[in-house]
Amino acid sequence: MAIKLYDLAGAEPDRRFSPYCWRTKMALAHKGLDVETIPWRFTEKALLAPYNWERVPVLVDNGRGVVDSWTIANYLEDTYPDRPSLFGGPAARALARFYNQWTDTVLLGAVARMVMLDVFNRIDDRDRPYFRENREKRFGMTLEAFCADRESRLPALRQLLEPLRQTVVAQPFLGGDTPLYPDYIVFGSFQFARAMSPFVLLEASDPVNLWRQRLLDAHGGFARKAPGYW
Amino acid sequence: MAIKLYDLAGAEPDRRFSPYCWRTKMALAHKGLDVETIPWRFTEKALLAPYNWERVPVLVDNGRGVVDSWTIANYLEDTYPDRPSLFGGPAARALARFYNQWTDTVLLGAVARMVMLDVFNRIDDRDRPYFRENREKRFGMTLEAFCADRESRLPALRQLLEPLRQTVVAQPFLGGDTPLYPDYIVFGSFQFARAMSPFVLLEASDPVNLWRQRLLDAHGGFARKAPGYW
Repeated sequence: MAIKLYDLAGAEPDRRFSPYCWRTKMALAHKGLDVETIPWRFTEKALLAPYNWERVPVLVDNGRGVVDSWTIANYLEDTYPDRPSLFGGPAARALARFYNQWTDTVLLGAVARMVMLDVFNRIDDRDRPYFRENREKRFGMTLEAFCADRESRLPALRQLLEPLRQTVVAQPFLGGDTPLYPDYIVFGSFQFARAMSPFVLLEASDPVNLWRQRLLDAHGGFARKAPGYW
Repeated sequence: MAIKLYDLAGAEPDRRFSPYCWRTKMALAHKGLDVETIPWRFTEKALLAPYNWERVPVLVDNGRGVVDSWTIANYLEDTYPDRPSLFGGPAARALARFYNQWTDTVLLGAVARMVMLDVFNRIDDRDRPYFRENREKRFGMTLEAFCADRESRLPALRQLLEPLRQTVVAQPFLGGDTPLYPDYIVFGSFQFARAMSPFVLLEASDPVNLWRQRLLDAHGGFARKAPGYW
Protein backbone atom coordinates (compact mmCIF):
# COMPACT_ATOMS: atom_id res chain seq x y z
CA MET A 1 0.00 0.00 0.00
CA ALA A 2 1.58 3.25 -1.15
CA ILE A 3 2.28 5.98 1.32
CA LYS A 4 -0.34 8.73 1.24
CA LEU A 5 0.30 12.39 1.87
CA TYR A 6 -2.25 15.14 2.42
CA ASP A 7 -0.72 18.00 0.45
CA LEU A 8 -1.90 21.60 0.42
CA ALA A 9 -3.30 22.60 -3.01
CA GLY A 10 -4.38 25.83 -4.65
CA ALA A 11 -7.44 26.38 -6.81
CA GLU A 12 -5.63 24.31 -9.41
CA PRO A 13 -5.29 20.94 -7.71
CA ASP A 14 -1.75 20.41 -8.99
CA ARG A 15 -0.49 23.70 -7.59
CA ARG A 16 1.04 22.48 -4.34
CA PHE A 17 2.47 25.21 -2.18
CA SER A 18 2.95 24.26 1.45
CA PRO A 19 6.59 24.80 2.42
CA TYR A 20 6.19 22.07 5.03
CA CYS A 21 4.69 19.58 2.56
CA TRP A 22 7.60 20.30 0.22
CA ARG A 23 10.01 19.25 2.96
CA THR A 24 8.15 15.93 3.20
CA LYS A 25 7.87 15.40 -0.56
CA MET A 26 11.59 16.01 -1.07
CA ALA A 27 12.30 13.63 1.81
CA LEU A 28 10.15 10.95 0.18
CA ALA A 29 11.89 11.51 -3.17
CA HIS A 30 15.27 11.29 -1.41
CA LYS A 31 14.25 7.95 0.08
CA GLY A 32 12.88 6.80 -3.28
CA LEU A 33 9.52 6.04 -1.71
CA ASP A 34 6.34 6.08 -3.79
CA VAL A 35 3.68 8.39 -2.51
CA GLU A 36 0.13 9.19 -3.46
CA THR A 37 -0.52 12.83 -2.70
CA ILE A 38 -4.03 13.93 -1.86
CA PRO A 39 -4.80 17.57 -2.64
CA TRP A 40 -6.07 19.24 0.52
CA ARG A 41 -7.54 22.67 1.16
CA PHE A 42 -7.41 24.72 4.35
CA THR A 43 -11.14 24.26 4.94
CA GLU A 44 -10.98 20.48 4.75
CA LYS A 45 -10.02 20.08 8.37
CA ALA A 46 -12.52 17.23 8.74
CA LEU A 47 -10.34 15.07 6.51
CA LEU A 48 -7.55 15.29 9.06
CA ALA A 49 -9.73 14.68 12.10
CA PRO A 50 -8.87 10.95 12.16
CA TYR A 51 -5.28 12.02 12.83
CA ASN A 52 -6.19 14.57 15.52
CA TRP A 53 -4.49 17.27 13.49
CA GLU A 54 -5.57 20.34 11.53
CA ARG A 55 -2.63 21.08 9.27
CA VAL A 56 -0.62 19.38 6.56
CA PRO A 57 1.58 17.50 5.93
CA VAL A 58 -0.14 14.41 7.26
CA LEU A 59 1.47 11.22 6.07
CA VAL A 60 -0.35 7.89 6.18
CA ASP A 61 1.82 4.80 6.03
CA ASN A 62 0.35 1.34 6.50
CA GLY A 63 -2.73 2.94 8.00
CA ARG A 64 -0.70 4.89 10.54
CA GLY A 65 -0.95 8.68 10.48
CA VAL A 66 2.18 10.74 11.10
CA VAL A 67 1.87 14.50 11.49
CA ASP A 68 4.27 17.46 11.45
CA SER A 69 7.06 17.69 8.87
CA TRP A 70 9.91 17.29 11.36
CA THR A 71 8.29 14.25 12.94
CA ILE A 72 7.61 12.81 9.50
CA ALA A 73 11.25 13.20 8.46
CA ASN A 74 12.35 11.38 11.58
CA TYR A 75 9.71 8.72 11.03
CA LEU A 76 10.89 8.10 7.47
CA GLU A 77 14.52 7.93 8.55
CA ASP A 78 13.76 5.41 11.30
CA THR A 79 11.24 3.35 9.35
CA TYR A 80 13.26 3.11 6.14
CA PRO A 81 16.87 2.89 7.37
CA ASP A 82 17.99 0.91 4.31
CA ARG A 83 17.03 3.75 1.97
CA PRO A 84 19.40 6.72 1.46
CA SER A 85 19.78 8.53 4.76
CA LEU A 86 17.99 11.86 5.12
CA PHE A 87 20.34 13.07 7.83
CA GLY A 88 23.59 11.13 7.56
CA GLY A 89 23.82 9.94 11.15
CA PRO A 90 22.73 10.94 14.64
CA ALA A 91 25.00 14.01 14.96
CA ALA A 92 23.76 15.39 11.66
CA ARG A 93 20.18 14.70 12.70
CA ALA A 94 20.68 16.80 15.81
CA LEU A 95 22.33 19.54 13.76
CA ALA A 96 19.40 19.53 11.32
CA ARG A 97 17.06 20.95 13.92
CA PHE A 98 18.55 24.44 13.85
CA TYR A 99 17.86 24.59 10.11
CA ASN A 100 14.24 23.82 10.86
CA GLN A 101 14.02 26.61 13.41
CA TRP A 102 15.94 29.12 11.28
CA THR A 103 13.65 28.48 8.35
CA ASP A 104 10.49 28.70 10.43
CA THR A 105 11.39 31.78 12.44
CA VAL A 106 13.51 33.78 9.97
CA LEU A 107 13.18 32.75 6.35
CA LEU A 108 9.57 31.74 5.96
CA GLY A 109 8.15 34.94 7.41
CA ALA A 110 10.28 37.04 5.09
CA VAL A 111 9.21 35.00 2.08
CA ALA A 112 5.57 35.16 3.15
CA ARG A 113 5.79 38.93 3.20
CA MET A 114 6.62 38.78 -0.51
CA VAL A 115 4.02 36.34 -1.72
CA MET A 116 1.02 36.10 0.62
CA LEU A 117 -1.25 38.17 -1.59
CA ASP A 118 -0.32 36.06 -4.60
CA VAL A 119 -1.06 32.99 -2.51
CA PHE A 120 -4.48 34.37 -1.63
CA ASN A 121 -5.23 34.93 -5.31
CA ARG A 122 -4.38 31.33 -6.19
CA ILE A 123 -6.06 29.36 -3.43
CA ASP A 124 -9.45 27.78 -3.84
CA ASP A 125 -12.50 30.06 -3.54
CA ARG A 126 -13.71 28.00 -0.59
CA ASP A 127 -10.48 28.72 1.29
CA ARG A 128 -10.36 32.48 0.80
CA PRO A 129 -12.55 33.78 3.62
CA TYR A 130 -10.78 31.54 6.16
CA PHE A 131 -7.34 32.37 4.81
CA ARG A 132 -7.87 36.13 4.75
CA GLU A 133 -9.36 36.27 8.22
CA ASN A 134 -6.81 33.93 9.81
CA ARG A 135 -3.75 35.52 8.24
CA GLU A 136 -4.88 39.12 8.69
CA LYS A 137 -5.48 38.42 12.36
CA ARG A 138 -2.00 36.87 12.64
CA PHE A 139 -0.27 39.70 10.79
CA GLY A 140 -2.33 42.49 12.33
CA MET A 141 -3.00 44.03 8.92
CA THR A 142 -4.64 43.32 5.60
CA LEU A 143 -2.93 40.98 3.16
CA GLU A 144 -2.58 43.95 0.82
CA ALA A 145 -0.75 45.97 3.47
CA PHE A 146 1.36 42.96 4.48
CA CYS A 147 2.71 42.58 0.93
CA ALA A 148 2.90 46.26 0.00
CA ASP A 149 6.28 47.61 -1.12
CA ARG A 150 7.72 44.18 -1.54
CA GLU A 151 10.25 45.47 -4.07
CA SER A 152 11.71 47.66 -1.38
CA ARG A 153 11.92 44.71 1.03
CA LEU A 154 13.77 42.50 -1.42
CA PRO A 155 17.29 43.65 -0.43
CA ALA A 156 16.55 42.79 3.20
CA LEU A 157 15.34 39.32 2.22
CA ARG A 158 18.44 38.73 0.15
CA GLN A 159 20.66 39.94 3.00
CA LEU A 160 18.98 37.53 5.35
CA LEU A 161 20.08 34.69 3.07
CA GLU A 162 23.75 35.52 3.57
CA PRO A 163 24.59 32.52 5.81
CA LEU A 164 22.95 30.20 3.29
CA ARG A 165 24.72 31.96 0.42
CA GLN A 166 28.17 31.68 1.96
CA THR A 167 27.58 28.03 2.73
CA VAL A 168 26.53 27.05 -0.78
CA VAL A 169 29.44 28.96 -2.25
CA ALA A 170 31.73 26.67 -0.26
CA GLN A 171 29.91 23.41 -1.00
CA PRO A 172 27.14 22.34 -3.44
CA PHE A 173 24.53 21.59 -0.79
CA LEU A 174 24.00 22.28 2.90
CA GLY A 175 24.51 18.55 3.31
CA GLY A 176 27.81 18.63 1.40
CA ASP A 177 28.24 17.07 -2.02
CA THR A 178 24.69 15.75 -2.03
CA PRO A 179 21.52 17.16 -0.47
CA LEU A 180 20.29 16.17 2.96
CA TYR A 181 17.10 16.97 4.82
CA PRO A 182 18.31 20.46 5.87
CA ASP A 183 18.51 21.34 2.17
CA TYR A 184 14.87 20.34 1.79
CA ILE A 185 13.81 22.30 4.85
CA VAL A 186 15.17 25.54 3.43
CA PHE A 187 14.29 24.75 -0.18
CA GLY A 188 10.63 24.22 0.78
CA SER A 189 10.27 27.94 1.43
CA PHE A 190 11.38 28.68 -2.11
CA GLN A 191 9.03 26.06 -3.54
CA PHE A 192 6.20 27.76 -1.63
CA ALA A 193 7.02 31.03 -3.37
CA ARG A 194 7.64 29.43 -6.76
CA ALA A 195 4.30 27.61 -6.77
CA MET A 196 2.16 30.65 -6.05
CA SER A 197 3.93 33.82 -7.10
CA PRO A 198 5.56 35.06 -10.30
CA PHE A 199 7.58 37.51 -8.19
CA VAL A 200 11.21 36.46 -8.58
CA LEU A 201 12.95 36.53 -5.22
CA LEU A 202 16.52 35.83 -6.32
CA GLU A 203 18.83 37.12 -8.99
CA ALA A 204 19.69 34.42 -11.49
CA SER A 205 23.38 34.50 -10.58
CA ASP A 206 22.84 34.50 -6.81
CA PRO A 207 24.57 31.42 -5.36
CA VAL A 208 21.34 30.79 -3.44
CA ASN A 209 19.52 30.57 -6.74
CA LEU A 210 22.17 28.26 -8.19
CA TRP A 211 21.73 26.00 -5.15
CA ARG A 212 17.95 26.20 -5.67
CA GLN A 213 18.42 25.15 -9.29
CA ARG A 214 20.44 22.14 -8.17
CA LEU A 215 17.57 21.12 -5.92
CA LEU A 216 15.01 21.69 -8.67
CA ASP A 217 17.08 19.20 -10.69
CA ALA A 218 17.55 16.69 -7.85
CA HIS A 219 15.83 13.30 -7.89
CA GLY A 220 15.12 13.42 -11.60
CA GLY A 221 13.86 16.99 -11.56
CA PHE A 222 11.08 16.12 -9.14
CA ALA A 223 10.62 19.65 -7.79
CA ARG A 224 10.98 21.33 -11.18
CA LYS A 225 8.14 19.28 -12.65
CA ALA A 226 5.68 20.75 -10.15
CA PRO A 227 3.71 23.76 -11.41
CA GLY A 228 5.52 26.97 -10.56
CA TYR A 229 6.56 30.32 -11.94
CA TRP A 230 10.34 30.54 -11.76
CA MET B 1 55.65 19.06 22.00
CA ALA B 2 52.43 20.65 23.14
CA ILE B 3 50.17 22.38 20.66
CA LYS B 4 50.58 26.16 20.74
CA LEU B 5 47.84 28.66 20.09
CA TYR B 6 48.17 32.40 19.55
CA ASP B 7 45.20 33.72 21.48
CA LEU B 8 43.92 37.30 21.50
CA ALA B 9 44.41 38.95 24.92
CA GLY B 10 43.28 42.17 26.55
CA ALA B 11 45.37 44.48 28.72
CA GLU B 12 45.21 41.74 31.34
CA PRO B 13 47.00 38.85 29.65
CA ASP B 14 44.50 36.27 30.91
CA ARG B 15 41.52 38.11 29.51
CA ARG B 16 41.06 36.21 26.26
CA PHE B 17 38.27 37.47 24.10
CA SER B 18 38.47 36.43 20.47
CA PRO B 19 35.26 34.62 19.48
CA TYR B 20 37.27 32.70 16.90
CA CYS B 21 39.96 31.64 19.38
CA TRP B 22 37.21 30.45 21.69
CA ARG B 23 35.96 28.13 18.96
CA THR B 24 39.44 26.65 18.75
CA LYS B 25 39.99 26.42 22.50
CA MET B 26 36.68 24.63 23.00
CA ALA B 27 37.57 22.30 20.13
CA LEU B 28 40.91 21.50 21.78
CA ALA B 29 39.18 20.88 25.12
CA HIS B 30 36.65 18.63 23.36
CA LYS B 31 39.50 16.60 21.88
CA GLY B 32 41.27 16.55 25.22
CA LEU B 33 44.41 18.01 23.69
CA ASP B 34 46.89 19.99 25.77
CA VAL B 35 47.58 23.44 24.50
CA GLU B 36 49.90 26.24 25.45
CA THR B 37 48.19 29.53 24.66
CA ILE B 38 50.29 32.55 23.82
CA PRO B 39 48.68 35.89 24.60
CA TRP B 40 48.68 37.98 21.42
CA ARG B 41 47.75 41.61 20.77
CA PHE B 42 46.39 43.14 17.58
CA THR B 43 49.61 45.06 16.98
CA GLU B 44 51.81 41.96 17.20
CA LYS B 45 51.30 41.06 13.57
CA ALA B 46 55.02 40.34 13.21
CA LEU B 47 54.61 37.28 15.47
CA LEU B 48 52.27 35.74 12.91
CA ALA B 49 54.39 36.59 9.88
CA PRO B 50 55.99 33.12 9.83
CA TYR B 51 52.50 31.76 9.16
CA ASN B 52 51.66 34.33 6.46
CA TRP B 53 48.67 35.43 8.46
CA GLU B 54 47.62 38.53 10.41
CA ARG B 55 44.84 37.30 12.66
CA VAL B 56 44.27 34.74 15.38
CA PRO B 57 43.69 31.92 16.00
CA VAL B 58 46.95 30.52 14.69
CA LEU B 59 47.64 27.01 15.89
CA VAL B 60 51.10 25.50 15.81
CA ASP B 61 51.27 21.72 15.96
CA ASN B 62 54.57 19.88 15.52
CA GLY B 63 56.01 23.02 14.02
CA ARG B 64 53.24 23.30 11.46
CA GLY B 65 51.11 26.46 11.49
CA VAL B 66 47.39 26.17 10.86
CA VAL B 67 45.32 29.34 10.46
CA ASP B 68 41.60 30.21 10.48
CA SER B 69 39.25 28.69 13.05
CA TRP B 70 37.24 26.62 10.56
CA THR B 71 40.40 25.21 9.00
CA ILE B 72 41.81 24.50 12.45
CA ALA B 73 38.68 22.58 13.49
CA ASN B 74 38.94 20.46 10.37
CA TYR B 75 42.66 19.97 10.93
CA LEU B 76 42.09 18.78 14.50
CA GLU B 77 39.32 16.42 13.41
CA ASP B 78 41.48 14.89 10.67
CA THR B 79 44.73 14.80 12.64
CA TYR B 80 43.28 13.38 15.84
CA PRO B 81 40.56 10.99 14.62
CA ASP B 82 40.87 8.75 17.68
CA ARG B 83 39.89 11.58 19.99
CA PRO B 84 36.19 12.48 20.51
CA SER B 85 34.79 13.68 17.20
CA LEU B 86 34.17 17.41 16.83
CA PHE B 87 31.58 16.92 14.12
CA GLY B 88 30.18 13.40 14.40
CA GLY B 89 30.73 12.32 10.83
CA PRO B 90 30.99 13.75 7.33
CA ALA B 91 27.33 14.78 6.99
CA ALA B 92 27.46 16.64 10.28
CA ARG B 93 30.72 18.29 9.24
CA ALA B 94 29.04 19.63 6.13
CA LEU B 95 26.05 20.80 8.17
CA ALA B 96 28.37 22.59 10.60
CA ARG B 97 29.37 25.13 7.99
CA PHE B 98 26.04 26.98 8.06
CA TYR B 99 26.49 27.54 11.80
CA ASN B 100 29.83 29.14 11.04
CA GLN B 101 28.29 31.48 8.47
CA TRP B 102 25.24 32.30 10.59
CA THR B 103 27.44 33.18 13.53
CA ASP B 104 29.81 35.29 11.46
CA THR B 105 27.20 37.18 9.43
CA VAL B 106 24.32 37.47 11.89
CA LEU B 107 25.19 36.85 15.53
CA LEU B 108 28.66 38.28 15.92
CA GLY B 109 27.83 41.68 14.46
CA ALA B 110 24.86 42.04 16.76
CA VAL B 111 26.94 41.08 19.79
CA ALA B 112 29.73 43.45 18.73
CA ARG B 113 27.23 46.28 18.66
CA MET B 114 26.67 45.67 22.37
CA VAL B 115 30.22 45.33 23.59
CA MET B 116 32.74 46.97 21.25
CA LEU B 117 33.26 50.01 23.45
CA ASP B 118 33.80 47.77 26.47
CA VAL B 119 36.28 45.81 24.40
CA PHE B 120 38.15 48.98 23.51
CA ASN B 121 38.37 49.88 27.19
CA ARG B 122 39.91 46.52 28.08
CA ILE B 123 42.45 46.00 25.34
CA ASP B 124 46.10 46.83 25.76
CA ASP B 125 47.12 50.49 25.44
CA ARG B 126 49.34 49.59 22.50
CA ASP B 127 46.35 48.19 20.61
CA ARG B 128 43.95 51.08 21.10
CA PRO B 129 44.91 53.44 18.26
CA TYR B 130 44.87 50.57 15.74
CA PHE B 131 41.65 49.14 17.09
CA ARG B 132 39.77 52.43 17.12
CA GLU B 133 40.87 53.43 13.65
CA ASN B 134 40.31 50.01 12.09
CA ARG B 135 36.90 49.41 13.65
CA GLU B 136 35.59 52.94 13.17
CA LYS B 137 36.47 52.75 9.50
CA ARG B 138 34.69 49.39 9.22
CA PHE B 139 31.58 50.57 11.09
CA GLY B 140 31.51 54.03 9.51
CA MET B 141 31.07 55.67 12.93
CA THR B 142 32.81 56.13 16.24
CA LEU B 143 32.87 53.24 18.70
CA GLU B 144 30.78 55.38 21.01
CA ALA B 145 28.09 55.85 18.35
CA PHE B 146 28.28 52.18 17.36
CA CYS B 147 27.43 51.06 20.90
CA ALA B 148 25.02 53.84 21.81
CA ASP B 149 21.52 52.85 22.91
CA ARG B 150 22.48 49.24 23.38
CA GLU B 151 19.69 48.74 25.88
CA SER B 152 17.19 49.58 23.18
CA ARG B 153 18.85 47.10 20.80
CA LEU B 154 18.72 44.23 23.25
CA PRO B 155 15.24 42.98 22.26
CA ALA B 156 16.38 42.75 18.62
CA LEU B 157 19.46 40.73 19.63
CA ARG B 158 17.36 38.39 21.69
CA GLN B 159 14.86 37.98 18.85
CA LEU B 160 17.68 37.10 16.50
CA LEU B 161 18.55 34.20 18.80
CA GLU B 162 15.14 32.60 18.30
CA PRO B 163 16.32 29.71 16.06
CA LEU B 164 19.01 28.87 18.60
CA ARG B 165 16.54 29.21 21.46
CA GLN B 166 13.98 26.86 19.92
CA THR B 167 16.68 24.33 19.16
CA VAL B 168 18.11 24.21 22.69
CA VAL B 169 14.63 23.94 24.14
CA ALA B 170 14.23 20.73 22.16
CA GLN B 171 17.68 19.26 22.92
CA PRO B 172 20.50 20.13 25.36
CA PHE B 173 23.03 21.12 22.68
CA LEU B 174 23.03 21.98 19.01
CA GLY B 175 24.90 18.71 18.60
CA GLY B 176 22.23 16.77 20.52
CA ASP B 177 22.85 15.28 23.96
CA THR B 178 26.47 16.40 23.96
CA PRO B 179 28.11 19.46 22.40
CA LEU B 180 29.70 19.43 18.97
CA TYR B 181 31.75 21.99 17.12
CA PRO B 182 28.66 24.01 16.05
CA ASP B 183 27.95 24.60 19.75
CA TYR B 184 31.44 26.02 20.14
CA ILE B 185 31.08 28.23 17.06
CA VAL B 186 28.03 29.95 18.47
CA PHE B 187 29.21 29.88 22.09
CA GLY B 188 32.42 31.69 21.12
CA SER B 189 30.43 34.85 20.47
CA PHE B 190 29.09 34.77 24.00
CA GLN B 191 32.56 34.15 25.45
CA PHE B 192 33.76 37.20 23.54
CA ALA B 193 31.09 39.30 25.26
CA ARG B 194 31.57 37.67 28.64
CA ALA B 195 35.33 38.27 28.66
CA MET B 196 35.17 41.97 27.95
CA SER B 197 31.81 43.39 28.97
CA PRO B 198 29.76 43.39 32.16
CA PHE B 199 26.67 44.10 30.06
CA VAL B 200 24.44 41.04 30.44
CA LEU B 201 23.03 40.02 27.06
CA LEU B 202 20.64 37.29 28.18
CA GLU B 203 18.01 36.90 30.85
CA ALA B 204 18.98 34.24 33.35
CA SER B 205 16.01 32.05 32.45
CA ASP B 206 16.45 32.37 28.69
CA PRO B 207 16.97 28.88 27.23
CA VAL B 208 19.91 30.34 25.32
CA ASN B 209 21.49 31.29 28.63
CA LEU B 210 20.79 27.85 30.07
CA TRP B 211 22.52 26.33 27.04
CA ARG B 212 25.39 28.79 27.56
CA GLN B 213 25.66 27.68 31.19
CA ARG B 214 25.91 24.07 30.09
CA LEU B 215 28.80 25.02 27.83
CA LEU B 216 30.47 27.04 30.58
CA ASP B 217 30.35 23.81 32.60
CA ALA B 218 31.53 21.53 29.78
CA HIS B 219 34.97 19.90 29.84
CA GLY B 220 35.44 20.45 33.56
CA GLY B 221 34.24 24.04 33.50
CA PHE B 222 37.00 25.04 31.09
CA ALA B 223 35.21 28.11 29.72
CA ARG B 224 33.89 29.23 33.10
CA LYS B 225 37.39 29.34 34.57
CA ALA B 226 38.43 31.99 32.08
CA PRO B 227 38.14 35.60 33.34
CA GLY B 228 34.74 37.01 32.46
CA TYR B 229 31.85 39.03 33.83
CA TRP B 230 28.72 36.89 33.63
